[in-house]
Amino acid sequence: MEKKLTLTDIAGMDKRPRVQLINSLPGFKSVNLIGTMGEGGNTNLAIFSSVIHIGSNPPLFGFITRPVTVTRDTYENIMANGYFTINHVNPEIYKQAHQTSARYDKDTSEFSATGLTPEFIGDFAAPYVKESHVKLGLQFVEKHPIETNGTILMIGKLQEVYFPENCLLEDGFLDLEKAGTITGSALDSYYQPQKIARLSYAKPDRPLKEI
Amino acid sequence: MEKKLTLTDIAGMDKRPRVQLINSLPGFKSVNLIGTMGEGGNTNLAIFSSVIHIGSNPPLFGFITRPVTVTRDTYENIMANGYFTINHVNPEIYKQAHQTSARYDKDTSEFSATGLTPEFIGDFAAPYVKESHVKLGLQFVEKHPIETNGTILMIGKLQEVYFPENCLLEDGFLDLEKAGTITGSALDSYYQPQKIARLSYAKPDRPLKEI
Repeated sequence: MEKKLTLTDIAGMDKRPRVQLINSLPGFKSVNLIGTMGEGGNTNLAIFSSVIHIGSNPPLFGFITRPVTVTRDTYENIMANGYFTINHVNPEIYKQAHQTSARYDKDTSEFSATGLTPEFIGDFAAPYVKESHVKLGLQFVEKHPIETNGTILMIGKLQEVYFPENCLLEDGFLDLEKAGTITGSALDSYYQPQKIARLSYAKPDRPLKEI
Repeated sequence: MEKKLTLTDIAGMDKRPRVQLINSLPGFKSVNLIGTMGEGGNTNLAIFSSVIHIGSNPPLFGFITRPVTVTRDTYENIMANGYFTINHVNPEIYKQAHQTSARYDKDTSEFSATGLTPEFIGDFAAPYVKESHVKLGLQFVEKHPIETNGTILMIGKLQEVYFPENCLLEDGFLDLEKAGTITGSALDSYYQPQKIARLSYAKPDRPLKEI
């Protein structure tokens, strides 16, 4: 049976189930750990399910943050030093990744609290997650406050990326299933994707092929 | 072996592999069909992998569009009539969904070209995809042009949502695996997620439980 809910139905729900439901609705989401460093050298690590591709030339990625609530450190650190890392989550670290969403006090790094290892590479001004297999280093380029609810779209330009060499195909496709990257849904569920197919470039009047 | 690519390496790649690679880097992505209607009643349907959750109260979702290239119809229709639908993709329709990315001429609806069925429900001013199992109807609320590359973040407020009743748990969690929703990577690959676990709400000094 198909169920319909209207905006009024949703507004009438208790907060917790409403937040779960609405977070379920965009479909499966990327699961990434964003690493930053504060002015005093404090490291911060937080899980995000809103990282998206903004463009390929230049390579741009964005995510949504809340400025005054649980993810404030990420926002403040990026505003202070201009750099951040995006680290894919794999089955070996998803519990630690989830645990970074706990509200630790300001002096506690989520790295030490969860047992993930901060990795500083060269002079890049934000910590990577050593246990992650696909790691992006970005420089902040612009932000867009969302008027309707006060969240902020943060955008960074890729400076460097690390991944397992044997996951890169000749045509530029990076095999995330092979790299162990997982996906998520709602607020708290994690999934391992299994390939259905890769499809050829779509053109009118030409049948698709699996590639 | 871990491979490193810098911004310079990436800028030196050929366009097609660069676009594949950069599109692989945010991790697994939501796969959705966005349905709109033009001023003359023409229907349009396009696949997007950038739909994200922006907020739960009010329920807001966003996606990235390019105003002057392949997804122009989606943008123009939303600007013209203010409404759009977001429809989850499942294994039965992923080929048709992929095929909507072909550049059909202005007079051809991607619905008729791909064999997907436009579904008008009540007086909602945008077509749903009948074959989709999770369907969101949204009203446009704001847009944010991205300065660095000219793409646009479009944001809509949920007005109504349809889903299989037996996929909704008491706590508001919508079981997308049961609903048949799939995920994607890069430009052209589709995956079926298999559940690893749902984890309890994270608090400092309390171990996580599977729920």
